[in-house]
Amino acid sequence: MQAGVKNNTAGLRGISAGETAIATVGKEGAGLTYRGFDIKELAAKASFEEVAHLLLEGELPTASQLQVYRERLRGKRALPGTLCQVLERIPASAHPMDVLRTGCSMLGTLEPEAADMEKMRFDQQKEVAERLLSTFPGMLLYWYHYVTKGERIATASDEPTLAGHFLRLLHGKAPDPLHREAMDASLILYAEHEFNASTFAARVCAATLADFYSAVTAAIGTLRGPLHGGANEAAMALIERFNGPEEARQGLLAMLGRKEKIMGFGHAVYRTSDPRNAVIKSWAQRLAQACGDPKGLYAISEAIEKVMWDEKKLFPNLDFYSASAYHFMGIPTPLFTPIFVCSRITGWSAHIMEQRANNRLIRPTADYIGPAPRPFVPVDQRN
Amino acid sequence: MQAGVKNNTAGLRGISAGETAIATVGKEGAGLTYRGFDIKELAAKASFEEVAHLLLEGELPTASQLQVYRERLRGKRALPGTLCQVLERIPASAHPMDVLRTGCSMLGTLEPEAADMEKMRFDQQKEVAERLLSTFPGMLLYWYHYVTKGERIATASDEPTLAGHFLRLLHGKAPDPLHREAMDASLILYAEHEFNASTFAARVCAATLADFYSAVTAAIGTLRGPLHGGANEAAMALIERFNGPEEARQGLLAMLGRKEKIMGFGHAVYRTSDPRNAVIKSWAQRLAQACGDPKGLYAISEAIEKVMWDEKKLFPNLDFYSASAYHFMGIPTPLFTPIFVCSRITGWSAHIMEQRANNRLIRPTADYIGPAPRPFVPVDQRN
Repeated sequence: MQAGVKNNTAGLRGISAGETAIATVGKEGAGLTYRGFDIKELAAKASFEEVAHLLLEGELPTASQLQVYRERLRGKRALPGTLCQVLERIPASAHPMDVLRTGCSMLGTLEPEAADMEKMRFDQQKEVAERLLSTFPGMLLYWYHYVTKGERIATASDEPTLAGHFLRLLHGKAPDPLHREAMDASLILYAEHEFNASTFAARVCAATLADFYSAVTAAIGTLRGPLHGGANEAAMALIERFNGPEEARQGLLAMLGRKEKIMGFGHAVYRTSDPRNAVIKSWAQRLAQACGDPKGLYAISEAIEKVMWDEKKLFPNLDFYSASAYHFMGIPTPLFTPIFVCSRITGWSAHIMEQRANNRLIRPTADYIGPAPRPFVPVDQRN
Repeated sequence: MQAGVKNNTAGLRGISAGETAIATVGKEGAGLTYRGFDIKELAAKASFEEVAHLLLEGELPTASQLQVYRERLRGKRALPGTLCQVLERIPASAHPMDVLRTGCSMLGTLEPEAADMEKMRFDQQKEVAERLLSTFPGMLLYWYHYVTKGERIATASDEPTLAGHFLRLLHGKAPDPLHREAMDASLILYAEHEFNASTFAARVCAATLADFYSAVTAAIGTLRGPLHGGANEAAMALIERFNGPEEARQGLLAMLGRKEKIMGFGHAVYRTSDPRNAVIKSWAQRLAQACGDPKGLYAISEAIEKVMWDEKKLFPNLDFYSASAYHFMGIPTPLFTPIFVCSRITGWSAHIMEQRANNRLIRPTADYIGPAPRPFVPVDQRN
């Protein structure tokens, strides 16, 4: 396709923007693998740290590699004091995604990535990736506790896993084992998804040979949008609107009648189902049973799912049941999308490194639909 | 082109990623217009505020509109105190682009963009764009004076133009009229360039319906890379390496012999010349004459230009002569790319608004080259 030739590729849907060895997404309209491993097997049998190792190092770790890896990540959790001072200046009214965006950018000024661009050597990139992976929960929750209770929490913990670390910092106590397991599975499901918008933004940024933090900051800002990561928060708001399954059914039908957008359904790539949905739905159900689900949110979610399928043939994506699963773990809704960041930093980092290893500036062209050439009239002769 | 079909479009070169009414770039391998007006006419006859109005409002302002516009922008220059406190915590060693990236992100937490995403109403977007346009010089130079001299400068000024405002904050006195004029022309040249990498990153981000600050933060991080905005700093480092034109000639030939990358030459879209080069080159020459150019940097620049053309048939792009022009105005090299931000925020903002007005999520696909499906082996059975 030549520059200037009209095409119907708004949004680049179906257009390949490059090669990747990291994930396949919905090649037959369904299915997801991370480096060849099926997402359902990973979510059922692996831990998030194994998946992080798989994405960042290319292979699953052996038992002893995994132990070393967990230790290393655990040692990188504490935030620099200056970063804490900056987080304290972000108002309580801020969107938590903006906290992570700002915190990531600020960390990049305190611990910049040294790289020799001319030789295309990025010796510190894996270290930066591990640092961000280890610090995001502390960044988010230091700010959260400070602005909600004036409390300055310790940002390190001895929890062996990131899932446990996140829940311990949030609740200030040892996490429920079931929650730890559910959070771990959720982090695996959110870890990687090929050239989704935030990952693509990270690659566009990395391709100018910008530093690692710039690319991750771009990705966080992109994930923030309600058409991308923000969908799980929108799904929660929807579910909480109703008092029971029948009210949900009628409410949904009314919303569809008014052509309102329902978040958490359908997908830009998957055609028949989101392979991650069955996993997170089963976790939502287990968590609902465990906590008793006093408001009946699980049944409401199922009622919404049924209407969406019956009326629109739209299936729930990962975001829909993640919403109630997180809710049952006692996680405040505004922290949902930041959890996505805590996980997806693994996929983003793998893509940034992959982009750098075989780089070409990502610079598409555009179809011009603006004014034809026109003569300039100086300001004092304009009217 | 279907998903999964191999193509040779790495970097999306020549692939249209959408429509734009803002600029045409090099449709015949040359030429640049902003909303139908030739860049050479704009640089010679308009002021930067007229161009900002053209990009953001769609038309050149009348004389009275221009006066109102300048007043309004001037009234938006002062930084919030909390932002200054954060800037003071960014170390002197930080890259100034990381200061703007962090400052922009932080401002987004202090003065968030309110928007009704469901109704696709972004009532505050122009206000945010004007605020960023007005505050970037102060953001950069507040930090700069604080970390270099411990001085807390006022971030507002009565200078009627952004060019004058920038130079006054930098030098702490009324700018030389020639410098004011040269800076104004330079800001016009850098204001807009269709789907370049940073603008494209902003659109990818905006297309998820993320907020305005997220999109601009993504763009700043993307512009930071040496293959994009960072090229003017790399060009300055190159020019300063030599003591005279003959040394430059021989040094360049040696560098080319070693296949080293020379920044500031050639372009991803322009084929025969960068239409902005003649304008900035003529400014570099005038500024060299005015300051006497004691190190002969202008002659060195011309010698480098000649070698690149004779040996590689590569022409200088806007970044190459911008480097010496800025140098002659007494601007420290690390502030070169941030000036690009102070100008390009106009183009970025126009593109963010255009993307939102006819939005579709930007989500390309990828060619998978990774491992075939493989069975998962639990960690205790791996070796």
